[in-house]
Amino acid sequence: MAETQTKIRFGVIGCADIARKVSRAISLAPNASLYAVGSRSLDKARAFAAANGFPDGAKVYGSYEAVLDDPEVDAVYMPLPTSLHVRWATLAARKGKHVLLEKPVALGAAEFDEIVAACESSGVQLMDGTMWMHNPRTASMKDFLSDAHRFGQLKSIHTCFTFAADADFLENDIRVKPDLDSLGCLGDAGWYCIRAILLAANFELPKTATASRGPVLNQAGVLLSCGASLHWEDGKVATFHCSFLSNLTMDITAVGTKGTLHVHDFIIPYEEKEASFYASSESSFDDLVTRWSSPPSKHTIKTDLPQEALMVSEFARLVAEIKFNNSKPEKKWPTISRKTQLVLDAVKASIERGLEPVQIQE
Amino acid sequence: MAETQTKIRFGVIGCADIARKVSRAISLAPNASLYAVGSRSLDKARAFAAANGFPDGAKVYGSYEAVLDDPEVDAVYMPLPTSLHVRWATLAARKGKHVLLEKPVALGAAEFDEIVAACESSGVQLMDGTMWMHNPRTASMKDFLSDAHRFGQLKSIHTCFTFAADADFLENDIRVKPDLDSLGCLGDAGWYCIRAILLAANFELPKTATASRGPVLNQAGVLLSCGASLHWEDGKVATFHCSFLSNLTMDITAVGTKGTLHVHDFIIPYEEKEASFYASSESSFDDLVTRWSSPPSKHTIKTDLPQEALMVSEFARLVAEIKFNNSKPEKKWPTISRKTQLVLDAVKASIERGLEPVQIQE
Repeated sequence: MAETQTKIRFGVIGCADIARKVSRAISLAPNASLYAVGSRSLDKARAFAAANGFPDGAKVYGSYEAVLDDPEVDAVYMPLPTSLHVRWATLAARKGKHVLLEKPVALGAAEFDEIVAACESSGVQLMDGTMWMHNPRTASMKDFLSDAHRFGQLKSIHTCFTFAADADFLENDIRVKPDLDSLGCLGDAGWYCIRAILLAANFELPKTATASRGPVLNQAGVLLSCGASLHWEDGKVATFHCSFLSNLTMDITAVGTKGTLHVHDFIIPYEEKEASFYASSESSFDDLVTRWSSPPSKHTIKTDLPQEALMVSEFARLVAEIKFNNSKPEKKWPTISRKTQLVLDAVKASIERGLEPVQIQE
Repeated sequence: MAETQTKIRFGVIGCADIARKVSRAISLAPNASLYAVGSRSLDKARAFAAANGFPDGAKVYGSYEAVLDDPEVDAVYMPLPTSLHVRWATLAARKGKHVLLEKPVALGAAEFDEIVAACESSGVQLMDGTMWMHNPRTASMKDFLSDAHRFGQLKSIHTCFTFAADADFLENDIRVKPDLDSLGCLGDAGWYCIRAILLAANFELPKTATASRGPVLNQAGVLLSCGASLHWEDGKVATFHCSFLSNLTMDITAVGTKGTLHVHDFIIPYEEKEASFYASSESSFDDLVTRWSSPPSKHTIKTDLPQEALMVSEFARLVAEIKFNNSKPEKKWPTISRKTQLVLDAVKASIERGLEPVQIQE
């Protein structure tokens, strides 16, 4: 099989800003190729292809359907507004296209399950666009968090993701529009906070979610700032805060019986080619309690490919397994996505119910 | 006036473990001297004086009263269990002794106010033993947090202080005994978390405190692990977590409209002679959102004296102002203490009332 045939051919559905980064990632991933782009405007699609490294001969379409109808397209990357996901992701699945779908996956679990059902029934792979999950740092952090000797049992975790949106964003971005991304900061930034908490909890769902006082909504009722606490049966507790109204911050502080993990750039690392976290185990003071016996140590993990290219590469690997080796789609990724969505739904419900605790059930 | 006369003479009331560190601090502070120690056991007081650098000729007493009755004692350091504070601190004040009192100051605001009233009526200085407030790093952090250009308005803050108490501590330490330190981890570790939050909020009291789900109490009903969220009228939110059951961790993540502060050792710095924090302002990504334009910068502040000696020195300076210059006691320190106590009381009340939000009023 020639190399070009083994590469998974991607069609990009929509020219959102984030599609620039993912198009570059598709170019960088050794097992993927930029094959097509579709926009509601042919001119926009043409300009996007020209500006984002699409090869000569790439297909440029003036509609999303045309990408889905191209038999050469193996998989689509879909950075559409969340409200359009259920329609276009299920259609893509029905047309036999594997779906790399931007997060939040859906406006709620019911829509999520429609998308999963369509993918399962067509035997296509579904993965959400949570890029930092594919940074090798995340695997290292997970190793530490899962280590009974170095970290012990998770007891508490706090995560946050905030950034200071400018006036134009707060007026015009899809993430503040009730008809496009009605989950606002919770769907955008909170998705990552919840995912990091689930990662540290070994993907065990919390029992309850209770939204924090003082969520901020815009005039259209879209969340601009909110937070919540999550609680597990065994006593683990988590808090998170997400916002469009504060300086850029992305933190995890996870505390176990034996260890602690700190990271300050968990979603987008400070640098593309390396990323760090801080870990400490069985920390203690000197005899007089005037200084630490051993401060946390910094762990830096290097990567040749940026995390978004690693995401594309992992997705393309799974697609190739299905396409060339008759494998089944990998359930791990949609399973993790769904848990993230369930917690997100519960936080939203808690906000809607006056900050009552909301039970979370699979 | 000879140098020895200008030094404030300290009596140490009780030989708790922490008194070792503070006795050293009194020795190190240029304006203070170790003058006396009192314990309910004369032998214990003798052994303590011998082991902790008390000068030849220091007074060693077999009771607390004897220290308070020594006319040469200017000030007392009082590391007694919290339940004894109201009795001994008010007595010390009535005997004209200035009071450096371990935290938590009291079991509740009513007791706190008794202590303050006694100090005010005798014209003596009251300060609590929150040592990290006197580290020069704290002043630098405060400068950053108060800077409208670099930090902007505080929007959210998370603090935590946890440490893994061993079996002996969980069985025998005064901090797990309902008759000694009935506030448990909230009074011990939570005090610092609340103080850091108040520092970042420019000591504006929150409007409400709501305890988090899942507080852990021992069989005697003393808190071993708990947390809370605090909420201000202007929308600021804070969360904290404190525990005796997790690895040693002490974090502040404060997020403003324009800046972010991170610190991982705010109570006991990693090193005695220097301490750091991380600050970032108007943080942003590169064009493709694959890395940060400017990561947070590390700020390291050096100090000749450890923070506990700086605390003693500041306290002794205020005492000397009163003793030699007829100044009035400085109200700043008891005011800050009282606010800390009020928030602590509200968190405790919220736990007792099934996690209901509790209003905080001065």
